[in-house]
Amino acid sequence: MERAVRELWAESRDLLGLHSPDAAAVPRAGSPPTPLAFLRDHVSPGRPLLLSSAATQHWPAASLWPTDSYLAEALRSTQVSLHLTPDGRADALAPHPRPRRPGDKCFASAHVRQVDFPTAVRLIRGSDPGSGLVAYAQQQDDCLRGEYAAVAGDVDAHVPWATEALGCLPEAVNLWIGSACSQTSFHKDHYDNIYAVVSGEKHFLLLPPTEHHRLYVRNYPAARYVAEQEEQDGELRLKLEVEEPERIVPWSSVDPYPTSPEEMAAQVSSFPLYFEGPRPIHCTVRAGEMLYLPSMWFHHVSQSPGPNGLTIAVNYWYDMHFDIKYAYFNFLRSFDIGEHSSRKTDALEGDLEETNC
Amino acid sequence: MERAVRELWAESRDLLGLHSPDAAAVPRAGSPPTPLAFLRDHVSPGRPLLLSSAATQHWPAASLWPTDSYLAEALRSTQVSLHLTPDGRADALAPHPRPRRPGDKCFASAHVRQVDFPTAVRLIRGSDPGSGLVAYAQQQDDCLRGEYAAVAGDVDAHVPWATEALGCLPEAVNLWIGSACSQTSFHKDHYDNIYAVVSGEKHFLLLPPTEHHRLYVRNYPAARYVAEQEEQDGELRLKLEVEEPERIVPWSSVDPYPTSPEEMAAQVSSFPLYFEGPRPIHCTVRAGEMLYLPSMWFHHVSQSPGPNGLTIAVNYWYDMHFDIKYAYFNFLRSFDIGEHSSRKTDALEGDLEETNC
Repeated sequence: MERAVRELWAESRDLLGLHSPDAAAVPRAGSPPTPLAFLRDHVSPGRPLLLSSAATQHWPAASLWPTDSYLAEALRSTQVSLHLTPDGRADALAPHPRPRRPGDKCFASAHVRQVDFPTAVRLIRGSDPGSGLVAYAQQQDDCLRGEYAAVAGDVDAHVPWATEALGCLPEAVNLWIGSACSQTSFHKDHYDNIYAVVSGEKHFLLLPPTEHHRLYVRNYPAARYVAEQEEQDGELRLKLEVEEPERIVPWSSVDPYPTSPEEMAAQVSSFPLYFEGPRPIHCTVRAGEMLYLPSMWFHHVSQSPGPNGLTIAVNYWYDMHFDIKYAYFNFLRSFDIGEHSSRKTDALEGDLEETNC
Repeated sequence: MERAVRELWAESRDLLGLHSPDAAAVPRAGSPPTPLAFLRDHVSPGRPLLLSSAATQHWPAASLWPTDSYLAEALRSTQVSLHLTPDGRADALAPHPRPRRPGDKCFASAHVRQVDFPTAVRLIRGSDPGSGLVAYAQQQDDCLRGEYAAVAGDVDAHVPWATEALGCLPEAVNLWIGSACSQTSFHKDHYDNIYAVVSGEKHFLLLPPTEHHRLYVRNYPAARYVAEQEEQDGELRLKLEVEEPERIVPWSSVDPYPTSPEEMAAQVSSFPLYFEGPRPIHCTVRAGEMLYLPSMWFHHVSQSPGPNGLTIAVNYWYDMHFDIKYAYFNFLRSFDIGEHSSRKTDALEGDLEETNC
């Protein structure tokens, strides 16, 4: 069985034009595709596309948002959702606060609070895992058209060639403002995703849906960072609490960038299909560029700030078309590869939640 | 494993909108789709489409070809390829002429000869399995633009909305002239197929690629009908000869319309995944109508003649795009489902040849 799955990995990368290490790069284009070419060459086969900054050069945001003052002024009295974690890893695995066995992990969500935008930017710029507080302004609820409506007109309301190709307007348009301290763990979304960077860079690690088993999706109890002791000393401290009643989240066990050599050794030994299999596809999206990330692709995202100290991005989520590819994916997922028989494997029946992008 | 495969069948039919017995019909449209809608709603998900006669009403062939005299006149001195079999079953399984074990079968191809068009029509109209001779004018080598070039201008040279959607011109355009005596056994093609009926009706039985195992693709020795004894009495007799050196053809073992109750009982008992699984999708394409048959779909075709005694059809083969769906199909095909361990199963590694449509 494992041989058949490995052959599937090789053949799908080959057919995607991503087989050899040298060719393992996302296809690039200098200008946006026609809707037909986008649909035929990227959406239908599930093939990413990286567009040059020609894609967003007409956006007022392209020149306005990277400046220091524009967003602060436009949003000076706007309340926004700020996601707080001690280490920049929200919606990611973290050590279980009350482990039954050594090394038990949980799925940790950020502490979210409403703050005014200037405070959010100050906390994002001051993010420091050393001091235990990393801030990320984001909310995956169509927030650009909600909380950030005052600046939504600075970008296209939708991506015209994608809208025409996919036959629908985006379900959500989200704004992301963070720093180098924040990263997003491996997951997939049930959306076709157009991801535009306005300031700084986003670094994607990508795996096609066929490589599901390399992510070691397992069930983890949901937990959430809560703020404590802030009344006493005015400082915000975050503490991880497991949700009650228990809620289980199937999530990838793989951390491609562990923070210590010991953790790296543990990762390599525990998740050989990831660390020894074909290399993930790296893709850096620079300010002005736009990435088409097909639905169901696994992605891990880290970021670098622009000269303004911020990474700013906008993404458009279009509802995916559930078709025979999705049925095939579920068939593939039903097999138990790379897991030891001593482990419960019902995580494989579950689905990665649609959080983060 | 078999459970996972059955779930794949159910989910893919569900996502194709073909799940319930009542809905198990090919989607219909009154007028040709836009290229974008065709690509998005049919090619990309692999979903057939049946178009009303509006699709071909502008073809001169629509009015000219069904008449008795037009084609005979236009092609009166044209040599065409006529496929001859005793029973109308070319590129189909037949009893092996030298069986090692009772019931052994081979893959039988027609005896092909060049005759002038009026003779071809006379033999097609006179086809009779009772007398051991069935004729079918066809040649899957772009024959409309080859042998039948004199009338090729009576139909569109390509299907504009399909050409625009698929980004290429058809690889082949074929003409098919037959009678009710001819049928085409279950197979699939590595082409996106647009099938237009000009006279009579074509009756398709369809199964999506996910239902591969229901076809019991096995390896058969290739054989060919040869003509014999015609010198003596002027009559054409066909005899099946196994090819030398041996050539193996992977082909579906299933005959949905066996000719005797005994053979039907043998089929049902030998191929339960076909006969007891979800019903194949029936689709009758009437004169003037056009069927889009996605690449990799299994199809069995039988036909009824029009008032002129002939079934006439034109099909356009567009090169398929090999993408992740194809990789998933090969993954699925690598599993040994519905076969007994006593049998050699390397047929499952092979591929149905691209013959017939």
